[in-house]
Amino acid sequence: MLDFDLVIPTRIYFGKNKIDRLAEEIEKYPNKILFAYGKESIKKNGIYTKVIEILNENDVSFVELGGIPPNPTLYYVQKGIELCRKNDLQFILAVGGGSVIDCSKAIAAGVRYEGDVWDFYLQTAKIKDALPIGTILTIVASGSETNEGSVLINESTQLKLLVLNDLLRPKFAIMDPTYTFTVSKKLTAAGVADIFSHILEIYFCPEKNTYLQDRLLEGLFKTCIKFGIIAVNEPNNYEARANLMWTSSLALNGFVLSGKIGDWASHMIGHELSAMYGITHGIGLAIITPYWMEYTLNETTLDKYVDFAKNVWEAKGDNKIEIAKHGIAKTKDFLKSLELPTTLREMGIQESELEKVAKKVVNLGDIGEIVKLNEAKVLNILRNAYGGK
Amino acid sequence: MLDFDLVIPTRIYFGKNKIDRLAEEIEKYPNKILFAYGKESIKKNGIYTKVIEILNENDVSFVELGGIPPNPTLYYVQKGIELCRKNDLQFILAVGGGSVIDCSKAIAAGVRYEGDVWDFYLQTAKIKDALPIGTILTIVASGSETNEGSVLINESTQLKLLVLNDLLRPKFAIMDPTYTFTVSKKLTAAGVADIFSHILEIYFCPEKNTYLQDRLLEGLFKTCIKFGIIAVNEPNNYEARANLMWTSSLALNGFVLSGKIGDWASHMIGHELSAMYGITHGIGLAIITPYWMEYTLNETTLDKYVDFAKNVWEAKGDNKIEIAKHGIAKTKDFLKSLELPTTLREMGIQESELEKVAKKVVNLGDIGEIVKLNEAKVLNILRNAYGGK
Repeated sequence: MLDFDLVIPTRIYFGKNKIDRLAEEIEKYPNKILFAYGKESIKKNGIYTKVIEILNENDVSFVELGGIPPNPTLYYVQKGIELCRKNDLQFILAVGGGSVIDCSKAIAAGVRYEGDVWDFYLQTAKIKDALPIGTILTIVASGSETNEGSVLINESTQLKLLVLNDLLRPKFAIMDPTYTFTVSKKLTAAGVADIFSHILEIYFCPEKNTYLQDRLLEGLFKTCIKFGIIAVNEPNNYEARANLMWTSSLALNGFVLSGKIGDWASHMIGHELSAMYGITHGIGLAIITPYWMEYTLNETTLDKYVDFAKNVWEAKGDNKIEIAKHGIAKTKDFLKSLELPTTLREMGIQESELEKVAKKVVNLGDIGEIVKLNEAKVLNILRNAYGGK
Repeated sequence: MLDFDLVIPTRIYFGKNKIDRLAEEIEKYPNKILFAYGKESIKKNGIYTKVIEILNENDVSFVELGGIPPNPTLYYVQKGIELCRKNDLQFILAVGGGSVIDCSKAIAAGVRYEGDVWDFYLQTAKIKDALPIGTILTIVASGSETNEGSVLINESTQLKLLVLNDLLRPKFAIMDPTYTFTVSKKLTAAGVADIFSHILEIYFCPEKNTYLQDRLLEGLFKTCIKFGIIAVNEPNNYEARANLMWTSSLALNGFVLSGKIGDWASHMIGHELSAMYGITHGIGLAIITPYWMEYTLNETTLDKYVDFAKNVWEAKGDNKIEIAKHGIAKTKDFLKSLELPTTLREMGIQESELEKVAKKVVNLGDIGEIVKLNEAKVLNILRNAYGGK
């Protein structure tokens, strides 16, 4: 087990009607806030009205930053920073999924920094202060509601990068599974693929002494698989939505990562597909993950693939290679059952562009931990994932 | 999944030499502190000297409360409260295992309360304020280093009771697995039995929709079993000590309990055995747990026992009753392999006293959740656990 430091101070309110706890949380902070949200969905399902009602009842004045898109860009962050500075806003309430929350985290850090917020993502500056933020989760996948990460796209350089800092951990997270009933089938499926990928990226780690963490991760895998399929087919199934919601937080809040390091190569590739072509994060991962697995199955990783196949997919037998391949095939079947695209060709990308993608993916250096991938190797995976005619 | 609220703000430093982080933590708090510890072991293994060195280097003045025994009593709590008040101490550094930490939590709450600290344990008063505390873990089992609980014995009434309050969560926990290398074989085994029991008490829960939590708990079970046996036989095995240390925290810090309720009947019985006869907590649990399992296996609990046997002990077959019994038999074998006592008779208790024990166990009402146990039922379990001649 690797050494680690961990703190998860986010106060979690999980269950039906937990929005009723918003008032007691919001009153702990200054009463001039930024209310950040995404597209129209929270207006349609009533969450928007409910939040405004609670803010008004508690004499909280707010400025709205709506319309934050999936794969948020620096543009919205700068807009948010300006709004906060101009109106002296001291708290951010982020209502949405990973995109809204990650964008809000960037704003929170940017307000308290004189330079360009993108410095944090380029790792040329370190976050030393940030506005407090609170979250109300409406789309499940990123785990951003309780973690220290923020992913952002710089539209001018077409780079999508991650920053991690404990100052970005939300102060509270209101997690009502019924709030996700109205998420579309496609976005639900993309979220499931994203959660699956988070678990997988942490599972496949070069450190070998990770017995405890791997058993926990196998529990998360099983939950994601079982309830992922149910949620896609029965959007109002509370247990499925609740299990996915809590799994997505636990996968990325540090609890199962502590003592390990993640691989994150598939995420790095997926991020560039989002930055360059606007591909929904979970869909990019659903396409790339099986090809990353096939490419990284080798003598060194074999035992890990065998564990995965046996403990997650209940593979039997003695031939390690066959067992490992069975695990990969089952993963493909699972992602296919979510009815997501399975090739880059389907996404309308030109095959001739793959070299450009590979170059961007390794922009900050080789990627991956369990298997190091340089530009040529990334290109190989992209070509395999492109799909036949 | 049941609704839940959760916050785990304890800052965790896990790994070799993490004591080096003590200085940066301790400087966040007032520099007049209570330094609480148990018997002589921390003086023998050098931890005591190291702590004093760091306190001195950082100009922290301290008053010592040493000698806190296993199964701490109100006597030590009152002594600690007096020391804090008399010397205006504003922080408690607890160096030890569950007994030292639980005692320190009681002191922390008691200092800021005019009445009798026992009120909190009788649930006749609620903790509204407490001194901040920090922990350095040297004995693994209780999970107290990162949780909100404190268990205490009132020696005059021979009751051992629990209080839960988020104000009791330590501010930091320094968890260096090498600090547990010198824990005796017997105490290590008792700790393993205690951890196993914590996982079991949460696993056996009347709420049925707990898929995610149960898969995580099965991961904790497997880790506890695998590394429990190794740690007992190879005290200096770092991986075994590290896996047990992190498992013990995760079992009781709220992560796997969130969405469930625990049963805790075995603990209630075990607590009285400690209060009345000074039986080491983990040893009491090792004796009681298998008999609690046999007694509570019925039509309602059968499926849970089958899950347990299949997913933890890899039981096969179609006959549910047989599978369930196999899981219980494997649990007995496991506890026996730790070389702990298996009957109450071995502990020198008179059979004629069991009625008195049962009466005390239900002092505050019937116990258990998955199966409610009244005095007669508790007596039955105690008689079964007494053992033949």
